[in-house]
Amino acid sequence: MCELLGMSANVPTDIRFSFAALARRGGETGPHVDGWGITFYEGRGCRSFHDPEPSARSELAKLLRNYPIKSRIVIAHVRKANRGRVSLENTHPFTRELWGRRWTFAHNGQLRGVKKLPLRGFEPVGTTDSEHAFCWMLGQLQQSWRALPRPAVLDRAVADLSAELHALGVFNMLLSDSRTLYAHCGKRLCYLTRCAPFGTATLIDEDWRVDFAQETTERDIVTVIATQALTRDELWTDVARGDVLVLRDGGIRLLTPGTRPAKTVTAPPTPVDARA
Amino acid sequence: MCELLGMSANVPTDIRFSFAALARRGGETGPHVDGWGITFYEGRGCRSFHDPEPSARSELAKLLRNYPIKSRIVIAHVRKANRGRVSLENTHPFTRELWGRRWTFAHNGQLRGVKKLPLRGFEPVGTTDSEHAFCWMLGQLQQSWRALPRPAVLDRAVADLSAELHALGVFNMLLSDSRTLYAHCGKRLCYLTRCAPFGTATLIDEDWRVDFAQETTERDIVTVIATQALTRDELWTDVARGDVLVLRDGGIRLLTPGTRPAKTVTAPPTPVDARA
Repeated sequence: MCELLGMSANVPTDIRFSFAALARRGGETGPHVDGWGITFYEGRGCRSFHDPEPSARSELAKLLRNYPIKSRIVIAHVRKANRGRVSLENTHPFTRELWGRRWTFAHNGQLRGVKKLPLRGFEPVGTTDSEHAFCWMLGQLQQSWRALPRPAVLDRAVADLSAELHALGVFNMLLSDSRTLYAHCGKRLCYLTRCAPFGTATLIDEDWRVDFAQETTERDIVTVIATQALTRDELWTDVARGDVLVLRDGGIRLLTPGTRPAKTVTAPPTPVDARA
Repeated sequence: MCELLGMSANVPTDIRFSFAALARRGGETGPHVDGWGITFYEGRGCRSFHDPEPSARSELAKLLRNYPIKSRIVIAHVRKANRGRVSLENTHPFTRELWGRRWTFAHNGQLRGVKKLPLRGFEPVGTTDSEHAFCWMLGQLQQSWRALPRPAVLDRAVADLSAELHALGVFNMLLSDSRTLYAHCGKRLCYLTRCAPFGTATLIDEDWRVDFAQETTERDIVTVIATQALTRDELWTDVARGDVLVLRDGGIRLLTPGTRPAKTVTAPPTPVDARA
């Protein structure tokens, strides 16, 4: 297994607090020693940092602890390899361009027979099941529309493709097209939304406490999603198996297989910086 | 204009010496203040660092000075924007996947009417002429072959596509498919190859001197290509306008428009680390 971390926010938000916990699980407080990566969206652009070294001992991960990158969508992953050797090309998140947008994907779990799924237009660079699943999803989307469809249509398509992969095994997944963060729960995924009135939080994996009231404005909304809770003094909500969360600007829509989406949190974007 | 830096080597090589000079040209010894980026290949994988900040003042560029990444193919770019605003998505090098390989592209110069060239399968994320040219090249290649062709065939195709872009203006370009580094000279590009017996070199842009004899073995071959010479005590060779250099394992083949390739330097790969 691996661990995932995602963030969606309505303001550019510094993820270093949450990433610090995840990074320690890559070799110190967790066994995920086979590489790590993180992608930060900034508008339509994104930048990724990958390292096949364990995140707990990675020089690059240490550098990121001291280098605040504020982003409204983040996807991060620490890897415990099961399929595909430990190498840079097998290190999540994976990225591709489709319809003039940067897509990013990270996964944990195993998918039986996924490599039999036919690929069109996108091919894996590495040898993981995960990258094959990502290429298959993008190929299916590209076959369906010539340009980016409107959000509700894309949300349903991502949920349907996720359900097909869910049927093959364990499909805990984070995906973004630079506009939306999608999360599919195959087995284990939880989230929390921070909004006013903000409180404090303390990491589980190290002695780091943040008072979010000092870091935010009352209009900020930040949702963090992770394989396991990252803080010990906040309430994390488990996602049900098979559910898809659709996150935009920190707000969440839940797509349960075969049901209509239900809006649970939304907020207008504001131009202030926050921390997660 | 912008400045380019490329490297091809037969051993994993630390580019920090050359990159230090380029980075200073992004706001200190040169006017290229509109962002910078660098891509390092490691086998089939690659990692890129991008920053829309001037490289001379970039925290991320400083971090890379202290973080040796050894690579056999590197492409770097410092930007002085003419088309496309200063933003992460307009920051070179650009990357895409084609035939299960990561392609990387950086360009300087202006290309009249390039956005009229039809795109197939690849679309720009940002608004630069350069990314449009890159997407056009990849679309043309993808239309021609279903899988990666053998090197000599691809070399010729890249040279032919480069000649078409050269006809539109100034096309100084670096391109890699993870196996080969291609360089097209539109107006200004020079290179040097370091091999045994190694000497010393001193940067033009700062007081940094390296004795390569201390950093290498006698089988190492490293070719560095740049818009302008980076060192003051080595002989840099200008590339002629319209010529394409094909670099593999530090060796160079010259493709002059309409002629057969001539082999000039080759060497077998060795597993030692070097510095450029």
